[in-house]
Amino acid sequence: MAKNDPIELSVEGKTSHTITRDPLPKSKKIYVNGDIHPEIRVPMREISLTNGEAVTVYDTSGAYTDPNVEINVRKGLTEVRRDWVLARDDVEEYQGREVKAIDNGYDDDAKAFATHNPDLQRKPLRAKAGQNVTQLHYARQGIITPEMEYIAIRENQQRAALQQEFSNDEREARLKGQSFGANTPKQITPEFVRDEIAAGRAIIPANINHTELEPMIIGRNFLVKINANIGNSAVTSSIEEEVEKLVWSTRWGGDTVMDLSTGKNIHATRDYILRNSPVPIGTVPIYQALEKVNGVAEDLTWDVFRDTLIEQAEQGVDYFTIHAGVLLRYVPLTAKRVTGIVSRGGSIMAKWCIAHHKENFLYTHFEEICEIMKAYDVSFSLGDGLRPGSLADANDEAQFGELETLGELTKIAWKHDVQVMIEGPGHVPMHLIKENMDKQLEVCDEAPFYTLGPLTTDIAPGYDHITSGIGAAMIGWYGCAMLCYVTPKEHLGLPNRDDVKTGIITYKLAAHAADVAKGHPGARYRDDQLSMARFEFRWEDQFNLGLDPDTAREFHDETLPKDSAKVAHFCSMCGPKFCSMKISQDVRDYSESLGADEQQKLSSQEIEKGMAEKSAEFKKQGSEIYVELQD
Amino acid sequence: MAKNDPIELSVEGKTSHTITRDPLPKSKKIYVNGDIHPEIRVPMREISLTNGEAVTVYDTSGAYTDPNVEINVRKGLTEVRRDWVLARDDVEEYQGREVKAIDNGYDDDAKAFATHNPDLQRKPLRAKAGQNVTQLHYARQGIITPEMEYIAIRENQQRAALQQEFSNDEREARLKGQSFGANTPKQITPEFVRDEIAAGRAIIPANINHTELEPMIIGRNFLVKINANIGNSAVTSSIEEEVEKLVWSTRWGGDTVMDLSTGKNIHATRDYILRNSPVPIGTVPIYQALEKVNGVAEDLTWDVFRDTLIEQAEQGVDYFTIHAGVLLRYVPLTAKRVTGIVSRGGSIMAKWCIAHHKENFLYTHFEEICEIMKAYDVSFSLGDGLRPGSLADANDEAQFGELETLGELTKIAWKHDVQVMIEGPGHVPMHLIKENMDKQLEVCDEAPFYTLGPLTTDIAPGYDHITSGIGAAMIGWYGCAMLCYVTPKEHLGLPNRDDVKTGIITYKLAAHAADVAKGHPGARYRDDQLSMARFEFRWEDQFNLGLDPDTAREFHDETLPKDSAKVAHFCSMCGPKFCSMKISQDVRDYSESLGADEQQKLSSQEIEKGMAEKSAEFKKQGSEIYVELQD
Repeated sequence: MAKNDPIELSVEGKTSHTITRDPLPKSKKIYVNGDIHPEIRVPMREISLTNGEAVTVYDTSGAYTDPNVEINVRKGLTEVRRDWVLARDDVEEYQGREVKAIDNGYDDDAKAFATHNPDLQRKPLRAKAGQNVTQLHYARQGIITPEMEYIAIRENQQRAALQQEFSNDEREARLKGQSFGANTPKQITPEFVRDEIAAGRAIIPANINHTELEPMIIGRNFLVKINANIGNSAVTSSIEEEVEKLVWSTRWGGDTVMDLSTGKNIHATRDYILRNSPVPIGTVPIYQALEKVNGVAEDLTWDVFRDTLIEQAEQGVDYFTIHAGVLLRYVPLTAKRVTGIVSRGGSIMAKWCIAHHKENFLYTHFEEICEIMKAYDVSFSLGDGLRPGSLADANDEAQFGELETLGELTKIAWKHDVQVMIEGPGHVPMHLIKENMDKQLEVCDEAPFYTLGPLTTDIAPGYDHITSGIGAAMIGWYGCAMLCYVTPKEHLGLPNRDDVKTGIITYKLAAHAADVAKGHPGARYRDDQLSMARFEFRWEDQFNLGLDPDTAREFHDETLPKDSAKVAHFCSMCGPKFCSMKISQDVRDYSESLGADEQQKLSSQEIEKGMAEKSAEFKKQGSEIYVELQD
Repeated sequence: MAKNDPIELSVEGKTSHTITRDPLPKSKKIYVNGDIHPEIRVPMREISLTNGEAVTVYDTSGAYTDPNVEINVRKGLTEVRRDWVLARDDVEEYQGREVKAIDNGYDDDAKAFATHNPDLQRKPLRAKAGQNVTQLHYARQGIITPEMEYIAIRENQQRAALQQEFSNDEREARLKGQSFGANTPKQITPEFVRDEIAAGRAIIPANINHTELEPMIIGRNFLVKINANIGNSAVTSSIEEEVEKLVWSTRWGGDTVMDLSTGKNIHATRDYILRNSPVPIGTVPIYQALEKVNGVAEDLTWDVFRDTLIEQAEQGVDYFTIHAGVLLRYVPLTAKRVTGIVSRGGSIMAKWCIAHHKENFLYTHFEEICEIMKAYDVSFSLGDGLRPGSLADANDEAQFGELETLGELTKIAWKHDVQVMIEGPGHVPMHLIKENMDKQLEVCDEAPFYTLGPLTTDIAPGYDHITSGIGAAMIGWYGCAMLCYVTPKEHLGLPNRDDVKTGIITYKLAAHAADVAKGHPGARYRDDQLSMARFEFRWEDQFNLGLDPDTAREFHDETLPKDSAKVAHFCSMCGPKFCSMKISQDVRDYSESLGADEQQKLSSQEIEKGMAEKSAEFKKQGSEIYVELQD
């Protein structure tokens, strides 16, 4: 059995799910070592082309696509970051909170611990007394952590590839038309990463207890990232399915994954997810807290919530969505909306506020939350509980009121050196997207924005990955740092494996469109490589350089299934007799055959003679003269 | 057998294709009569909601979705426009050009006429000597044709629906946030249609021989339109399949259809398509001309091309793509491109130009082409033969050089009162789209722009409907009048039935996103209706108001298949125990329970006390103080 054989997983002994481990076609994992921190090994995916060249691309898939690594999801991935965290000498191991039956949604231990896996338990780490272990804290001290250098190498590979293969002139020619952002250097350096973190313009979600993590960055002067949501619900799905979705999401390019589980076995599911995730994991802790009070929002207390934060921080969750901006006074502003409050967390807090006629306890306890966040380096994802659920409600008073409060909270978190990003909508028509982005940058002092879509119409259930992909690409261009994916099942049901993949590929292309438009260093390199492959009829390279080689090959084979068609110098659109791409070669030969003189002559007015003659003729006739037509 | 039973079609006796005739769910066809021209009957689709209300939407599906109309595709649709055309008393019936074997791509008559259907032949009409029968000509005379009034009613239905159902204030409230274009009136009137046509800012593609047509308009102060491409090719597909694709395309919202057939039976296929099409049909005549010279581009002549124009104009083609801007001097500019020339028509003409070292004969004969166009009212779609085939080539010298020539040709066509639109790219990164749109408006004096996509990345083969849908929505917002769809099979193979539908729905939502962003009168009405249905858990209404009710219902049923779930006041995302939408009702009740005084109190600073206290506490502690965490 090869190390990368598919993993059969059956946690509860009922259903079995297969985790795909094949590398993508013609791809192999390579690792680049650090300079400041030689121990770091940054993974990249190298795609071999049929012309002997190779293209490296950003790789979120972790060890799963490396056939040299053995993986047992019942034991978890290798703890690559553990040494880095310990080397800073500011953390301590401690006993940790005891796992309770209610953490899995049960009263009775037998049921609660049926899914408990002792091999996935780690003794938690936390900051020593008086220490702050956030990347923001280090950055402000001028420290370049291994995480920061890792990210610099990871973000910069396209440019590095260009530098390796082309002369300066040729490289610049290839980057023509890319408008580099004012703040974006031509090369991402570790110092640049540190400075952006220190300024709060970017975050590295990296809980010290998520030691399996391959660090990544979220900020608008870096590649635009995407998040995939997974999670079981009261209605359907299981632990196995969620682990499989996690690996599946990262395989296709998910940069972070949010576990939005509700219902039973939330704690055990999260053990499996975190111990097996190479990407940051985000959660909405109020979901689990609500399960602990039997789904009754008004029974929520600060103590239950706080306990849940500690529970999840010890497991290693990298960022928490906290709906601390849903203030009591904003709640009535939503009463006249077309779609009221559509955020689950937002409505939980709204319900709590109005039931008690009191201010949101997440807001009144915000400083205490900060204390927890900085002891584990959990990043804030300040939730937009009042996001618009329809075009009609976009950019309204409730939404922008909450956004201003999130701006206040950002400053408080920053006082604690806690990393912050801000969540955004939702449903926003195209002409209001920029206003939303600009407002967020202004009131949140450039803290990274992380938006769901936005959806640019409300009329396409079944296609909301597309209607939101439009808004996502635009807001990414305007400065949004991370895009939360939407699947075709949005508003209708829970996504399956295929839906997850479709959502991710849609968002990868939206993020990439934004990277190109923003002029991220070397972003267009992959496009150019794919276009050259297309132009030269290198079909296999065209498939393999794409975001989804399997689907591209399958679509091609529907029309021209034979292997010979994949080396054919024509395609199914025009067939073998005539081909526009073939003619372009004739054009090149022709152009080369022309001397400079002749090229000059071509541009002269002489060749317009024919037209001028016709025009004169027309004027003589007058414009209404009837010409005899053949019949 | 009911009149709207599915039509089984088997033209060549080999394969059978079923044409779907069911109305969309809960939809019925209604007709609105004209005022100036009482004989016109403008079709709309009325969707019945479960709350007793109804919403009318723009309907491109023609008689196929009207169970009261009998249809025989072997005989063609009712000629609704014939009387309007004859009433103008400026046309004559004549014998028409004789159909030749070569029109179907054969030397021998037996093969060529095997697919010929006498029941689809009509005696052609053309302008009487000295007459000009274009809509542009009439508009400039101040005439409001039946076609113009038809369009005013058709474009205006959303506003009409609003006016019917709501008070002025409520209507304006519902339209809040919609920025009306400077040139867009709040109501589309027949006079406005005429003025836009007269100015050349819009066209009505309506060949006098396409009497089955339901008129529509293409211009940036109207609803953004979409085009679907169909057509057999040298590699695959048949006449039956193309007719079925035509009906299928219009069912889902295709506003125009281009028949891009190559290979055999082009003439016979076009007979079937035109006689059965309620929407304008466009072609690229050079494709058929090329077949007539056995696919050898350099053998093309003006005579063969001219003969093909007459052939197709007599059949009733509504617009011709003519690549008259591919000038000899632009051809060498493409030699250094990453993807050279990717337009089929463009490369045919480039090949001809360089083979003969002569100027493009479409350019030198342009005035003669105008004479033909105005005798039948065929509109120009001036082809962008040099459009970029990759991001790297976007907005380059070749593309913009050709665009300037298309601007010159527009002025010449307008001298003949011939209607013109301009074709555009292609592949363009987001940050270069607006430049392209602005340049087109400037050099083509606001003639309507009609673009393919544009694709905003090159890295997503298999998903190019999405990557181009992003660019399409944006350019639609910026002022593009019609968007040519891209299917998931773009760059890979020929689209099947499912691909056509996916491409159309994607483009409908992109066009709609643009209509909303531009502030077309009442564009957001359908979004609001769907959002209200969603909020009120009217699942059936949510499905039926969407662009694709079948898929929405199917997706919902995958998670919650029972019929009872379609009236459930919860969805699969949160399950029955907790629901954010339900809470919004609590919020409404709460807000109503608050007096004005209490609302005021809520807004006062008093409630921020808790936060202020915490903040003061924090400042006392200093930001680095460790707080004991539970363990």
